[in-house]
Amino acid sequence: MSIEHFWAVIPAGGAGTRLWPLSRRTSPKFLRDLRGSGRSLLQETYDRLVPLVDDRFLVVTGAAHEVAVRGQLADLGPGAVLAEPSPRDSMAAIGLAAALLELADPDAVMGSFAADHVIEGSDVFATTVAAAVEVARDGWLVTLGIEPTHPSSAFGYVRAGDPLAGHAGASQVAAFVEKPSAEVAEGYLADGGYRWNAGMFVVRPGVLLDLLATWHPDFAATLRRIAADATLLDELWPTLPKIALDHAVAEPAADAGRVATVAAGFDWEDIGDFDSLAALLGADGEGTMAVLGDASLVRAIDASGLVVPDGRTIAVVGLDDVVVVDTPDALLITTRSRAQDVKAVVAALPESGHDGLT
Amino acid sequence: MSIEHFWAVIPAGGAGTRLWPLSRRTSPKFLRDLRGSGRSLLQETYDRLVPLVDDRFLVVTGAAHEVAVRGQLADLGPGAVLAEPSPRDSMAAIGLAAALLELADPDAVMGSFAADHVIEGSDVFATTVAAAVEVARDGWLVTLGIEPTHPSSAFGYVRAGDPLAGHAGASQVAAFVEKPSAEVAEGYLADGGYRWNAGMFVVRPGVLLDLLATWHPDFAATLRRIAADATLLDELWPTLPKIALDHAVAEPAADAGRVATVAAGFDWEDIGDFDSLAALLGADGEGTMAVLGDASLVRAIDASGLVVPDGRTIAVVGLDDVVVVDTPDALLITTRSRAQDVKAVVAALPESGHDGLT
Repeated sequence: MSIEHFWAVIPAGGAGTRLWPLSRRTSPKFLRDLRGSGRSLLQETYDRLVPLVDDRFLVVTGAAHEVAVRGQLADLGPGAVLAEPSPRDSMAAIGLAAALLELADPDAVMGSFAADHVIEGSDVFATTVAAAVEVARDGWLVTLGIEPTHPSSAFGYVRAGDPLAGHAGASQVAAFVEKPSAEVAEGYLADGGYRWNAGMFVVRPGVLLDLLATWHPDFAATLRRIAADATLLDELWPTLPKIALDHAVAEPAADAGRVATVAAGFDWEDIGDFDSLAALLGADGEGTMAVLGDASLVRAIDASGLVVPDGRTIAVVGLDDVVVVDTPDALLITTRSRAQDVKAVVAALPESGHDGLT
Repeated sequence: MSIEHFWAVIPAGGAGTRLWPLSRRTSPKFLRDLRGSGRSLLQETYDRLVPLVDDRFLVVTGAAHEVAVRGQLADLGPGAVLAEPSPRDSMAAIGLAAALLELADPDAVMGSFAADHVIEGSDVFATTVAAAVEVARDGWLVTLGIEPTHPSSAFGYVRAGDPLAGHAGASQVAAFVEKPSAEVAEGYLADGGYRWNAGMFVVRPGVLLDLLATWHPDFAATLRRIAADATLLDELWPTLPKIALDHAVAEPAADAGRVATVAAGFDWEDIGDFDSLAALLGADGEGTMAVLGDASLVRAIDASGLVVPDGRTIAVVGLDDVVVVDTPDALLITTRSRAQDVKAVVAALPESGHDGLT
């Protein structure tokens, strides 16, 4: 049974350049099956949400990916996929969805869930989201706060404040905290009052837009004008600020005491690079070679890390924590510890006349 | 001007499994352009010898490679390529050539030069071979002794004995020495009396067969029977011992005082594995990435070693002394120090149903 008037908003954007050559501009990571499950990350996001919302989806994606998104989510009606004329960061994408839902369903509560996150434990996810919806109905901007499993310096954190009366497990958010150093992250883990900010927000559309109007009145007004008259989209969209929802609304709203967090106990991964993908696929840094795809193609001798084959035999001899990614037109070889630097390869491709590979 | 009655015998065999996947059973290393010169190692061997012998070639190769060899050496007449019914090591291959030449040209001197060696300095090579032919005419089995440039433990050595009267630069061979330890190799280099045994022999065919007859009378007799009646080849060939020329003839002949060596000052490389190929192509172990093929396909960031591209872009990030070999159906990633272990990959392929890749 779905949650009444609850809508799933899925911002499906981001190139995932640190996952090149698996992820491309033309085939970003949310369209890829990065877990060998047979479903793309976008499809897994849909699968996780469909029991909670039935057909109440709004997927906001780039015009370049509209056809692919509709193809992967064939059960959705034509109105459920919105194509942005150009990328203008998350506030514009999620704000437009909010403005449309504000008009379409006065009782709507929306939840925004990125298309490229990996979540284990559908039941815990459903329970957590249902709790967040209840809090959101009371007018809060609710963020799901993931219980940290290790002292990550790759994620931002939310610091929980006072418990919220009437909502077990919910607290006010005292502050959003930027990605910490490893040392500070250790402290956060020991403290117990810090949770990972996974960028999953649950809120009534009107509340979100009114909060936005507090700090960016023109932004909110423009979104509402577009929602009221779709013919204005192409003209007004390029005038919207490029800003993340966190900075535009969530952080100032937290300072104003308007943000709540619900503790989330499910496993969550933002597969940002091949190091985290390797970990997700079972590479333990102690001799295991993880394979995304047909493992019978991989011959590892004294080798560990991650191999992504693509139809050809791949032999790896005498390399630990290596990353090998095979695609029809490009091949990447690096190490887990240098996984972040893949970005530099992609950045340099256009200069060298290999723009088609990005 | 060529050397009168001098014949080049080129044993073109050996799979080169340590150069997999570049080298295959169906496309062994002597058929490959391993230097980016536009010519295969076999063709370079031919190019080096043709000024010395004109059309006096005998290339002995496996039946499986006969068509490819004839294709690469299209200037040779049909009788210049001999196909072995099955591989029976170097004594049988070179011995058959000797038996044929003994009949065809009573004044013949033959030089045996492997099809997969790399030699720099054609003029020095020509001078050295001409000197060796003069010594061989006097009835010696002559081996070219390469002046060592470093204390290699990858090659066997010849120890020079007394100088040979009447032949400047030539000496008797006191002994053939097996591949030494690194420490012993240092001693050889310091001693000055040791040279690399490159397996290049110059000898009158009858002398070679008579020496063989001393220790393996049936072997020599069978070779002479086949040479006299080609219809016996298929029947008698499988009865020949599988033994290297060094063991069958050169070593016992050296003990008997019948082997001479001519000092060779040209640069010589037996590209046994990707480590030596990397060195040959300029990888210096100090940050240089050598590329065999189209260097514009390779993006190396903080990476060194050897990349062999095959039409696709290859990005290597953060790996030193790495070896990456791309082919249409198989991909190898290893390190220069583990280059020898590629053999193990190839050995395991048939077991796993990937026999077609060997």
